[in-house]
Amino acid sequence: MGQQGQRTPAGKGAGKEFVKEITPQAEDYSQWYIDVVLKTELMDYAPVKGCMAIRPYGFAIWEKMQELLDRRIKETGHQNAYFPLFIPQELLEKEAAHVEGFAPEVALVTKGGGETLAEPLVVRPTSEAIICDFYSRWIQSWRDLPLLINQWCNVVRWEKVTRPFLRTSEFLWQEGHTCHRTEEEAEEETLKMLGVYQDFLETEMAIPVIPGRKSEREKFAGALRTYTVEALMRDGRALQAGTSHNLGQHFARVFEITFLDRDDELKHVWQTSWGVSTRLIGALITVHGDDRGLVLPPRIAPIQAVIVPILTKKAGEEVLAAARRLAGELRSAGIRIHLDDREGYSPGWKFNEWEMKGVPLRLELGPRDLQSEQVIAVRRDSGSKEPLPWAELPGKLPALLEELQGDLYRRAQRYQQEHTRSGADYDEFLRVMERERGFFVAPWCGREECELKAKEESKATIRCIAFERPEEDERCLVCGEKAAEKVYLARAY
Amino acid sequence: MGQQGQRTPAGKGAGKEFVKEITPQAEDYSQWYIDVVLKTELMDYAPVKGCMAIRPYGFAIWEKMQELLDRRIKETGHQNAYFPLFIPQELLEKEAAHVEGFAPEVALVTKGGGETLAEPLVVRPTSEAIICDFYSRWIQSWRDLPLLINQWCNVVRWEKVTRPFLRTSEFLWQEGHTCHRTEEEAEEETLKMLGVYQDFLETEMAIPVIPGRKSEREKFAGALRTYTVEALMRDGRALQAGTSHNLGQHFARVFEITFLDRDDELKHVWQTSWGVSTRLIGALITVHGDDRGLVLPPRIAPIQAVIVPILTKKAGEEVLAAARRLAGELRSAGIRIHLDDREGYSPGWKFNEWEMKGVPLRLELGPRDLQSEQVIAVRRDSGSKEPLPWAELPGKLPALLEELQGDLYRRAQRYQQEHTRSGADYDEFLRVMERERGFFVAPWCGREECELKAKEESKATIRCIAFERPEEDERCLVCGEKAAEKVYLARAY
Repeated sequence: MGQQGQRTPAGKGAGKEFVKEITPQAEDYSQWYIDVVLKTELMDYAPVKGCMAIRPYGFAIWEKMQELLDRRIKETGHQNAYFPLFIPQELLEKEAAHVEGFAPEVALVTKGGGETLAEPLVVRPTSEAIICDFYSRWIQSWRDLPLLINQWCNVVRWEKVTRPFLRTSEFLWQEGHTCHRTEEEAEEETLKMLGVYQDFLETEMAIPVIPGRKSEREKFAGALRTYTVEALMRDGRALQAGTSHNLGQHFARVFEITFLDRDDELKHVWQTSWGVSTRLIGALITVHGDDRGLVLPPRIAPIQAVIVPILTKKAGEEVLAAARRLAGELRSAGIRIHLDDREGYSPGWKFNEWEMKGVPLRLELGPRDLQSEQVIAVRRDSGSKEPLPWAELPGKLPALLEELQGDLYRRAQRYQQEHTRSGADYDEFLRVMERERGFFVAPWCGREECELKAKEESKATIRCIAFERPEEDERCLVCGEKAAEKVYLARAY
Repeated sequence: MGQQGQRTPAGKGAGKEFVKEITPQAEDYSQWYIDVVLKTELMDYAPVKGCMAIRPYGFAIWEKMQELLDRRIKETGHQNAYFPLFIPQELLEKEAAHVEGFAPEVALVTKGGGETLAEPLVVRPTSEAIICDFYSRWIQSWRDLPLLINQWCNVVRWEKVTRPFLRTSEFLWQEGHTCHRTEEEAEEETLKMLGVYQDFLETEMAIPVIPGRKSEREKFAGALRTYTVEALMRDGRALQAGTSHNLGQHFARVFEITFLDRDDELKHVWQTSWGVSTRLIGALITVHGDDRGLVLPPRIAPIQAVIVPILTKKAGEEVLAAARRLAGELRSAGIRIHLDDREGYSPGWKFNEWEMKGVPLRLELGPRDLQSEQVIAVRRDSGSKEPLPWAELPGKLPALLEELQGDLYRRAQRYQQEHTRSGADYDEFLRVMERERGFFVAPWCGREECELKAKEESKATIRCIAFERPEEDERCLVCGEKAAEKVYLARAY
């Protein structure tokens, strides 16, 4: 546990040697993932099992994600708030399905200020219970509805098997909690926020997702219906990227969240909750990363372009002056630019480091480029190089970054399409899940029995029930009976 | 505990009656404060003692504060990161003074995932211990310095006596943690961040503060020197608004944070830490608030101006259309505007509500204003009214808001000056602390004995040691011996 800083003495580890430190994906995908998150300094392991520190480079990605998602959350009429970290155990236990789902993985505070607490406090694994307690007091009348609140916070779930970002005992997330007058309004909200997640993931993170509904088995503990957006990682496994729950009136009934409606009748509210977490950083790494390290979509990248000056003894000062001028101009043009003017590191070493860190564009500037007033722009995704005149940079870079963003999305989409099989041939399904994996789209009768059989024999779960309906004559993948649903199956993290 | 929503049926509680719900400051300052935080919906009490929910209106203020402070933290070269919530107890116990200071008020997690933990985990009361553990691995060489990291997070301190925002068991804050090569650099950083806090408080929050150093008794547990900025509340009590610590090498030694210096010698780093919290919302309320409720400085106000249309049966539609157009124009001009177009509430009721909520400007728009194409602008601080032509609004409002911001600062500064006495007359000091309170600036010999005597007899503490030195012939307020320091004394929260 714990790793050395990436900085090695000048000259050491230059060129290809440096990149060799990352295990190739084909050799050991899990090790590749760990190598990437540690060596790019996204995170470091905590002295508490399953916990981590998110280092500045990783956190800058999260801040960018927060900014872009928070804007969407506010544009759809929600306000942020903050609810307590600690939940009295009896509150968590009010909703039966909810406590059953979360009780096994909670952390308990039993002592405070040197004394044993009369009642243990749960460190929030999710905040439905504590928020409902407040809502029951805040809501009186139909005028108080809809109540549209979101919070950004940390949550704790005592996980047995953990993996940086993808599954950690403490993680950061946002959780929206809303109350509505009618079932229809709650359902509309649930699907609207699922759409917000899909748009955010596809537009900003360049991650194509499959939206759908969770099966009864896989739905959120306490929900009426859970919707999900599922992404596909480079190792063919699915990742639940975000969920949106229609909570119905389950919580409203046990927490007595009532309102006086227009017709003067006292009614229970209809609720939703929805969330995405730092797990999305894991999605980002696994969807776009390659054997050289991270590949960051420009809209999320903390650094969109890095200028690496190639300093010779003769032209060093001049090159550096030009690089500084250029950096200033590009920064003014709104581009997140970094000038790597560190001494004691070779240009080759710097190229490798920024490639590993996934910076979308590298701008090389050497003595010869000084003459022709240009830089060599190198794309992280394709490695393609092109000379760009200084004068055109502020105008052209934004377009080039957007092009790169689009290409990343299309590449991920192509991968997803190439790794999505369909049909009702159960043997083929088992073969696919054993070998190349990916999604398998199949008709399903709707019975939990078949869902469990498929899971046991293939290790794949129903990631979601598609919004499209099966054809009239389609038959269940497992039992061959008449199909009620069309489902996406995959192995998952 | 728990309060009714502010929304009452139409017509009810209109006019002055409404404002009466807030206890006057002169009658009972503590009750005034509680009335304000609850009735303006800044917060609500949690079912866990000493904890609270920050409601959307309160949280919007915090978000604005975060934005303006975070910008300053980044402009001074710091990066954000996130460290774990849980600290193994043995880590917290490494630094002797640190554990002595914090152990009595920690919350302990003793169970996780249904099992008793081998070692209890402390819910972070502050993060020096856990961060030092990471830093000892991240720092190897002088090239890794300075390391300038900040985090925004929640912390928990099991407090016996709590008060919303001013002292809560869980609160939100930012904590900066930096490492430096030399003592001078660490001291420079400590003072730089104190300056950042002072600038932020005075410029954005319109709160004048006294900067200085804490006495040995009052310094942070584990620090070499603690600096503070102290504000003065409307009831004459001081409030520690932000602190910046030069940690020296205390933590570096016990956590073994070493680096190979340029001279090839292994040395311990010099560290600082600094923080401000949601307590500042308490400062905002108490420094600017009056008997009608909150008074928010425009730069921090979630809503800078509220448009209240005065709707008559005849001209209702027309007035509303004009109000909407105006709101759109002002929003485009970058002003945080809210149009209160709720039905079923009288204009008078709305006036009172927005006054209570501290919105800096109210723009009234009635049928007669339609004719003359104007609004009546009413200032929250002074109550002064002036007609403003529609056409001039986008240009004039920003200037008017800045004027109001400046006036609030000057008003608070005047209050502070009027409530700052000085001298070496101990009896006068005791009288002042008993009656009008405020700051008392006095010479001090520097001995803890005198500090304690003054505290016991006046309930006032040394808020800070001034940066100015005492005159040659000045004598200690308490013992009459030669003065070594000039100190600000006050009763405090």
